[in-house]
Amino acid sequence: MKFQRKTVIIIGGGFAGLEVAKKLRNKPVNVILIDKSNHHLFQPLLYQVATAGLSPAYIAFPLRSIFRKAKNIRVILGEVKRIKRDEKKVYLNGENYSYDYLVVAVGARHHYFGNNHWEKFAPGLKTLQDAINIRERILISFEKAERISDPDEQQKYLNFVIVGGGPTGVEMAGAIAEISKKTLLEDFKKIDPSKAKIYLIEATDRILPTYPLELSEKAKRDLEKLGVICVLKTKVTEINEDKVYLNGKVINASTIIWAAGNRANPLIQQLNCEVDKIGRAIVTPFLNLKNDKCVFVIGDAAAVFDKNGNTLPGVSPVAITEGRYVAKLILKKIQGKEIKPYRYFNKGSLATIGKAKAVADFGWIRFSGFFAWLLWVLVHIFFLIGFKNRIIVMLEWIFAYFTHQKSARLIVDEKKLYESNK
Amino acid sequence: MKFQRKTVIIIGGGFAGLEVAKKLRNKPVNVILIDKSNHHLFQPLLYQVATAGLSPAYIAFPLRSIFRKAKNIRVILGEVKRIKRDEKKVYLNGENYSYDYLVVAVGARHHYFGNNHWEKFAPGLKTLQDAINIRERILISFEKAERISDPDEQQKYLNFVIVGGGPTGVEMAGAIAEISKKTLLEDFKKIDPSKAKIYLIEATDRILPTYPLELSEKAKRDLEKLGVICVLKTKVTEINEDKVYLNGKVINASTIIWAAGNRANPLIQQLNCEVDKIGRAIVTPFLNLKNDKCVFVIGDAAAVFDKNGNTLPGVSPVAITEGRYVAKLILKKIQGKEIKPYRYFNKGSLATIGKAKAVADFGWIRFSGFFAWLLWVLVHIFFLIGFKNRIIVMLEWIFAYFTHQKSARLIVDEKKLYESNK
Repeated sequence: MKFQRKTVIIIGGGFAGLEVAKKLRNKPVNVILIDKSNHHLFQPLLYQVATAGLSPAYIAFPLRSIFRKAKNIRVILGEVKRIKRDEKKVYLNGENYSYDYLVVAVGARHHYFGNNHWEKFAPGLKTLQDAINIRERILISFEKAERISDPDEQQKYLNFVIVGGGPTGVEMAGAIAEISKKTLLEDFKKIDPSKAKIYLIEATDRILPTYPLELSEKAKRDLEKLGVICVLKTKVTEINEDKVYLNGKVINASTIIWAAGNRANPLIQQLNCEVDKIGRAIVTPFLNLKNDKCVFVIGDAAAVFDKNGNTLPGVSPVAITEGRYVAKLILKKIQGKEIKPYRYFNKGSLATIGKAKAVADFGWIRFSGFFAWLLWVLVHIFFLIGFKNRIIVMLEWIFAYFTHQKSARLIVDEKKLYESNK
Repeated sequence: MKFQRKTVIIIGGGFAGLEVAKKLRNKPVNVILIDKSNHHLFQPLLYQVATAGLSPAYIAFPLRSIFRKAKNIRVILGEVKRIKRDEKKVYLNGENYSYDYLVVAVGARHHYFGNNHWEKFAPGLKTLQDAINIRERILISFEKAERISDPDEQQKYLNFVIVGGGPTGVEMAGAIAEISKKTLLEDFKKIDPSKAKIYLIEATDRILPTYPLELSEKAKRDLEKLGVICVLKTKVTEINEDKVYLNGKVINASTIIWAAGNRANPLIQQLNCEVDKIGRAIVTPFLNLKNDKCVFVIGDAAAVFDKNGNTLPGVSPVAITEGRYVAKLILKKIQGKEIKPYRYFNKGSLATIGKAKAVADFGWIRFSGFFAWLLWVLVHIFFLIGFKNRIIVMLEWIFAYFTHQKSARLIVDEKKLYESNK
């Protein structure tokens, strides 16, 4: 029997969107995958690019290559400007595409709680460009510190402030401590290693607040051993070019990194659907909209509730399983079949702290230290895309483990060094 | 006997300047190495970054790391603004350094023969930033071609023009032919591979004009097999955003790359010395200035004559041997000794043409094809800095050899894709 193939448009090639496309590969549907960038980004390792441990290419995979052999998948590098649900169309600059099913997997951006002017001074870490910018900021700080004689002025370039004590903040703090106390300072002959100060600011009473208490405490001790100063129960009240204002305290720092808040991509507003307080689309247990069963929202842009009424966390295992579910649902629906609502089984959480330390929480077992780190390494190598990338990332980690050296210590945009006074 | 150590200032961490510093490592002199960028760049492989074959980090080595164990070498990341020979001082922004010996190894930039406005449309390839810009321009061209329906407009994005048929131009043309005819076009489902056209424009009557005639002809045949169109005896008369004007012909092309001319760094003018017509300092057979024996100029910024009165070519073996010579001369001079004038022994030339093809000229033997390419691979791996970099570059080449895949196909600066109409 011949019939008109249905068209599935996926917006976003992150973990959620990519998984939908993979599961629809060579299936009897037309797929259009639209992304603003030409690569899928392996975000869990992005902080390693920001701290000069890995080159961008090994954690970013061209979407076209992933689907080069999938005849039913078309990849479009473009930015969606409008979604019109009444027309069942998606509009880009100058062209539009019709869908039968729409999967919106557009992720989140940093959220500055109404202080958008902070973004310039305290960039967040979502894209490769973000990571490269942060890397250059860190490296340039040390170069400036090396050339400055005035001790107060020098200290400013040796102070690093990370706002937000979740997994990203913890991993950044650990990695910056490691490069500043070990990798870099051996190279700078005028700087005193003990002067580098890394502050991790967290509003709640512990870092990794979504982890079990014992692991939070273990992570804090590990960070402190690396020289990180954890400032708990403290909110940032203002940020400017080289200052972070806390309740009654000021830290002078030329490098300030934001890891505190996320908000769903503003494209979600165009769906005219119910959203939660950080802009995520509230979806049904089938991950589609209550008033439009053909539109699915998944990943960090969706608010999905578990059986206790809590929203699922914005981590890759959630995004991947949501993507897998939606692909399956669409294929069944085309055959006129139904499937059960989506359910998430937490397989565990891992966060790494500097070199050779990590914390792991699998619900039934919790552990930390070297073996947690080894598990972290294996899991991340396993989930990377491409045999060659796995080998090279592993090589990089083995070398880094034994030498303290970091591979990608490049300042490419030298103008930054000479133009600004920062 | 105690004495005041002499200070050697080296400006520039390219092949020439780096070699001077290496040979002065842990010798009884103070060395200050000043560079605008934080890395030494392995320029012979820069075209591979521009054509997405290698990640920047593997051909760029932090200068500080290279000299981390050399107590007598200080690395300064900074831009020299003025050289005052009468004061024996070098001025940076806000600080200055005194020297006993000055080594100027500041290299060359592209030269547009009085048409500096072409630079914007036809960038050259000297720095990592140049290479990344060219890489993004090439990748974005294909993305645009994929989305455009109008055949003339599409052809513009599939035309690539390289101006200049020297080694850089030949290597770029071969690599672009390879990615556009093989690597990329398999990924783009709407583009017809035969439509990608690569033009190599050369003013003289053959490509690789400094090589023996037979190798020029072999290289031309190899390029043509890859689909490159060699346009000889032809000068570019005008370049604008998407057009190259030749004698009576116009090529529409969104990607235009300049590999035609070099000119010494303008800092040379501050030496108030004799210069040749491309701005290079004319040096004595001891590589110093006729009127100032303490100032040496080496590498691409110097005009050094061989015994036939021809200037030595701007290639890394010349720069390296010049650097080695100057370091030796300075050390001898401090001991009150003299050495013989510098002489260059040509060890040969190599140029690669796409994948698995190259030409080699060693004076006493000339050959081409697969074995020339294998030699090229071995020589380049050998001269790379760092054991790990060698392993990873070799891995990249082995994978590329068997898969046609390119590692670093990243468009990081997505704004370029959406802002401009190019």
